[in-house]
Order: sequence, then structure tokens, then C-alpha cells
Amino acid sequence: MSLDETIAALGRRARAATRALATRDTAAKNAGLTAIASELRARGSAILEANAADVARARDKGTKDALVDRLALNPARLEAIAKSVEAIRDLPDPVGVVVEEHVRPDGLRIRRVRVPLGVIAMIYEARPNVTVEAAALTLKAGDAVVLRGGSDAARSNAALAAAVRAGLAKAGLPEDAVSTLDDPSREMMQALLRADGSIDLAIPRGGEALIRFVTEHARVPVVQHYKGVCHLFVDAGADAALAAKLAVNAKLSRPGVCNALECLLVDAASAATLLPPIAEALLAGGCELRGDERTCALVPQAKPAREDDWGREYLDTILAVRTVDGLEGALAHIARFGSGHTEAICTRDEAHAERFRREVDAACVVVNASTRFHDGGELGLGAEIGIATSRLHWRGPMGLESLTTMKWVVDGAGQVRP
Amino acid sequence: MSLDETIAALGRRARAATRALATRDTAAKNAGLTAIASELRARGSAILEANAADVARARDKGTKDALVDRLALNPARLEAIAKSVEAIRDLPDPVGVVVEEHVRPDGLRIRRVRVPLGVIAMIYEARPNVTVEAAALTLKAGDAVVLRGGSDAARSNAALAAAVRAGLAKAGLPEDAVSTLDDPSREMMQALLRADGSIDLAIPRGGEALIRFVTEHARVPVVQHYKGVCHLFVDAGADAALAAKLAVNAKLSRPGVCNALECLLVDAASAATLLPPIAEALLAGGCELRGDERTCALVPQAKPAREDDWGREYLDTILAVRTVDGLEGALAHIARFGSGHTEAICTRDEAHAERFRREVDAACVVVNASTRFHDGGELGLGAEIGIATSRLHWRGPMGLESLTTMKWVVDGAGQVRP
Repeated sequence: MSLDETIAALGRRARAATRALATRDTAAKNAGLTAIASELRARGSAILEANAADVARARDKGTKDALVDRLALNPARLEAIAKSVEAIRDLPDPVGVVVEEHVRPDGLRIRRVRVPLGVIAMIYEARPNVTVEAAALTLKAGDAVVLRGGSDAARSNAALAAAVRAGLAKAGLPEDAVSTLDDPSREMMQALLRADGSIDLAIPRGGEALIRFVTEHARVPVVQHYKGVCHLFVDAGADAALAAKLAVNAKLSRPGVCNALECLLVDAASAATLLPPIAEALLAGGCELRGDERTCALVPQAKPAREDDWGREYLDTILAVRTVDGLEGALAHIARFGSGHTEAICTRDEAHAERFRREVDAACVVVNASTRFHDGGELGLGAEIGIATSRLHWRGPMGLESLTTMKWVVDGAGQVRP
Repeated sequence: MSLDETIAALGRRARAATRALATRDTAAKNAGLTAIASELRARGSAILEANAADVARARDKGTKDALVDRLALNPARLEAIAKSVEAIRDLPDPVGVVVEEHVRPDGLRIRRVRVPLGVIAMIYEARPNVTVEAAALTLKAGDAVVLRGGSDAARSNAALAAAVRAGLAKAGLPEDAVSTLDDPSREMMQALLRADGSIDLAIPRGGEALIRFVTEHARVPVVQHYKGVCHLFVDAGADAALAAKLAVNAKLSRPGVCNALECLLVDAASAATLLPPIAEALLAGGCELRGDERTCALVPQAKPAREDDWGREYLDTILAVRTVDGLEGALAHIARFGSGHTEAICTRDEAHAERFRREVDAACVVVNASTRFHDGGELGLGAEIGIATSRLHWRGPMGLESLTTMKWVVDGAGQVRP
């Protein structure tokens, strides 16, 4: 079989699984999720053994500690994964929710109803927890998923996927709702990405290189999770203590995540009073500052920023700092250098807040709070499969609803069109 | 400039226009639509002259009458186009609508708000009305649009786009919210379709060949409008008169449109009583029937169907007719041959209706009414830019809401993440 034929066959089995799932109710899907959690626990030692082999191989290859840490499982982490499946089970079922409804004068009842999205390809790096979370979220949404995880986690993923499929089978659900690509080659991934008609959506999750590769090679729709170059604009007359608190939390509470702050913008009109205390708080927290000329004049500890510091995602305890000319200057900087992820303003001026909410083009706009709130759990989605920075279909944290589409349902009593 | 540079420059001007539009309110956009309608009327004779030149050229080339008719404008048609702009003006503004909202215990207010989608590429055939309707819908949604119409309508489109841009300018709105591709070559269209980052969405509207070309060459997201292979399943025990009425309306009221019926499925259990009267009504309306063996045995006037009659879009007074084994048989036929556009059931059995609503995977599912209701106007959207059969982002008639995306807006009073 050619690669394309292999993918087409996989896609047909996955599509058939979605048809079978469409006949099952919420309780049946929930029973499947309970069974998956049980299987993960029952097969704990086999899963940890497979994972230990992956970890040993990664260490032999000289993989960085941070990446090995993402790959490694232990009993506590495996239990957390099983619990996450149960948490997804306990979320409301998005399928069947009536989004809008009206009855026409002629009695025709028009509804728009949430339905499963279809067959989803999940492409990710060596993070075994994603294998299970993606399977659980897609199952709850009534979708089928084809998992293509990083090859460094191949044994772990195979063991986890086997547990998931065993759980599905025990609950009388179609095993092909969750399948894996056994061939880890780039060629097979490319075949998956061009399988228009078989795959309804590809979700890449990982570094920028992976996402660019997927976007480049995809003929199927892709929801992108590009980088988070998040800004905080401190407006003229803002509360310096509040601004410092927001900047420190956004930058330093977890510098390596996509909703962390990467660039602070301060209105030049108030920079002389605002910048020194904010900078002091950041420096006290161990943050390196890279400032434009006006910033460096006010904050001697700041290093001079270069042009490529604007729009840069450090994912580290480094922050770019720039003085701008008013709200206009901040909006222009963000329009040019922002990544459409999270943008925040600290202000006492409600008119400025409203312009910022309206004119900034990003998945999430934050007023007087930390950029770190842009997260599925924090925004009330319960669980997320990633954060979309693309504009189409979905924006922001991708929870269950993002894994559905809708259909129009028209109920009549014999109406025809004149 | 290379083609890609030309498109990038066009994209930057369009993006700048969306930023300018984001600062304007509903009244300003509505004033723009009023000015566009006025300009269309004021420039009526110039527009009709340009159109007459296109029509003459099309006739010289030997273009089919039906296509020339789609291309041709006259004073009444131009007035209808101007009125459609005013009708779009009078629709509610989707931008700023709060889709959901909640306040967390810590006081953080979370909203999901509709915002413009961005820069849209509209690719269509020689239908001048699409030029104006696409411009009006995207403007109302706060988007910018790049129009690439069929080359047979080049002069008409240039005259119409000039009127639209003049209207924008008179209303103080950015002219670059509406632009046209002056170079009608396929190479330029391909450059447009690969302009990832410049174009947020491509909407092809036309025949299947155009849509396949766009999908094949696009690196930007595409919402597809594929063919409508619509089925009506007549359940066992259905009301024969009702089924005949629905079939006749769905097939014969306007055979050339995408929501017209293309295939009738009848439960074999009741075929002997149901098929003859339904067939009689269709034959009396001038419809050719192509049936499977069991159908032909009951309806001698039917011609034998070939395998390629299943899943075929005739867009003509021809109907495929097949007897199937119960609801299961109908669901299996639709899953295999349907195009995901519109699927209908005629039944007295609510359990069957509910299985059909739930298990049929299509943009629109209809119970006991005509498939012809799958239309933006009929479903209450006011105006549509086409009907999407793709699953992602939007399904069914694309009205104003389909031309928006959303953003998360988080309002705080200094909250940070622990």
C-alpha cells in the first residue's frame, strides 16, 4: 500500500467510528472515558516500563533535560493523566447543544445544533500526556482522532494508545475512534496532512518549526498554535504598583509558557515616574531587561535592545521594554510585533481600555490583569488541547466546543418553497 | 514586483483598512453602505456600458446563453444590486456581540466577543452582483475583501468596484477595504491563494472545477462550497401525498440550484404503495426518473439508473430514485453518496426523524419539509455569500456572522495568577 492508501484506509476506519459514535449518547461516551481511566491505571506498570525505555533512549541521544522531563512519566504523573480523563468526562457534553433556534411564521422550526467536527489529526512532540488528553477530548466531542506523536515517545504513546483503545472496546465503543500513526516518518506525516476528505482538521502542537512544517505541507485545514509574543502596555497615569504587580506576574510566574509576557510598553508621557518602580520590581525578581534608548536612560540596569528584540518570544527571564508615544504608539507596536496571542493594558482610563479591547487584534485582550489568565482552565473551559492563534474556526484555548461544528436542523410539517 | 510582492502589498493595504475600520462604529459602516448604494445609482450608465462591452465580448466568444444571462446587467438588475446593499446595511451588526460572558469568584470578567475576521479573498465567476454583495457583506462585518472575479466580467467588475470604492471614500472609510485583482491570470490567483498571513480566508464561489482549483492551490484557509447532492428519504408508512409534494418542490421548483433534490430514497417496505404516486407527481411535472431495479419494477416509466447516477448532481429535471432497506439503508446511502449539503426525511415516526437528525452528517438536515429551505434568506440570515459544505469554521449559508471571528476579553482589577 502507498502512504496515501494507508492514510485513506485509516481515515475510512476513523470516519466509520464517528458514525458509530453518533449513535451513542453522553452516558455511553462517559462510560468510555471511565473505562479508559481504569485501563490506564490497570496497565500502569507496562506504560511506565515503555516510558522508561523511551527516556533511556532519549538520554542516550543526549536530549536536553527539559525535554526528557516532558517525556518522563512516573506513577504520580500517570495518575494525573487518568484523573484528567475523568475531569474531561465530567465536563458538559457539547454535542446536541442548540446554539440558536427560531420558529418561522409558517411553523418551520430552525435550529443550529452543535455536532462533532469529524476526524482530527493531532500532531505533537514527545509529550505522552497529550496522547491521552487529545484522545479524551475528541472522544467526549464525538470525534475520531489520529495521533502522530513525537518519535522520542513512540513506546510510551503505543502503550498509552493501547490502553485507550482497550478502554473503548470494554465500553462497547469503536476502537478506531482513537488511532495512531505507527510509521513515524516525515513522509507518513505529510501523507496525513494532504488527506483532504479523510482528515477534517489538523492540530499541530509544539514548537514553531513543527507548526510551520504542518502549515507548509497541509492540504487539510490547520488550526495554528503559533508563538505568544505577549505585550503589556502601561498607560499614562497608570498605578505604578499595579503595573509592577501585573508585569512581574506575567513575566516571572512561569517564563517558559506562551501566555508569559515578552514585551513591556510604557507611555513616554509617564515613563519617568512609572518605569523605575516597575523595572525595580522586575529586576528584583531576577529579570533581565532590554530597553530602547528612552528606557535605558531611565533604567540604567537595562541593556540596550536590538531591533530583533521587538516581537521576540524569549520564553525566559528576559523582557523587552519600550517607551511608546501614547496609546496610538502602543497599538501600532502591537499591530506590528504582536503574535495575536495575548495583549494587555494597565490603565485607569476606561476610554483607553475600550479602545484597546476593540482595536487590538488578538485571541485574548486583557485589561488590568495578568496575561497568564489566557488559559483554558482559567477562562472556564475545563480542559484545552492548546491555544489557537489562527483566526478561523476558533481562537484562544481549544476546549470541547472547539472540537465541534454545527448543523442546521429544519423541522416542518410539509412546508415547501413557493 | 513579483506576483507575491504585489499580493503582499495589496494585503498590507487591506490589513491597514481593517485596522481603520476597527475604529469606526456601526453608524459609520452603515453610512458607507448608503454611499455605496448611491454611487451605484449615480454611475448607472457607466456601469451598464462597461457591462454591455463584457456581454458583447462573451457573445463573440460563443459563451452559453445561461452564462451570458448571469453576466448581463440592466437598470432593474442594477437597482436590485443597490437595494441589496441597503438590505445588508439594515441587518444587525455582528461585531461586538458578546457570545458568552461570566464573572469569576475573584471578580475577573470573561467575555467572548465577535470581531471582524480580517482580510478575505473572494474568488468567483462572471457574476457581477457577487462583486457588490461580497463587498457589502464584508464591510458590514468590518473585514477587508480582495475580489477576484471571472475575467469575462472584468469591465463590469472594474466599474462596480470603482463605485464601491468611491462610496467608501465619500463616507470617510478606507477605500482599501475593497480591492480587486487587476491581473486576471491564474498565476496571480495562485499568488493570492498562497498569501498566508496576508489573507485570512479564501471563499471560492462557482463550479466544482473552480473550487477544486482553489483548494488545490491554497495555503490560506478555504471555506468550500462544493456541490449539493441532496437526498429525500421517504420512510415506511410515510404520507404519500406529503412525500410527493416535498419531492416535487425540492426537485422541480428550481432544478438548477444546489439545494435542489438529486436523489429520492424510498424504504422498500412501503415502496409498492409510496413509489407509484410519488413517481406520478414527478413525471407529471416533467421530471425524468432513473431508478434501481426495484424502482423500475414499480415505475415502468423510470429508466434504469447506472452506478454513477448515485451521488450525481444533475442540476436538471432528472432525479435518481432508489429503494433502500429501511432507515439504515438510507443512512448508509447518504453517508456514501451525500455531499454534506442538505438531506431530508419524510416520516411519521419521530424516533426515525430523531435518528436522521442526529446521524446524518450534513450542513442542513430537514424533517418533513423541502430541501429548498436550506438558504440564507429562508433560515433567517438576511443575506449570504454562499453555502459552505466544509465542516470547519462555518457550515451552511454564510451570512454576516460567518465573516467574523471572536476574541476573548478579560477585564480585571489587578488580578494575577498565583
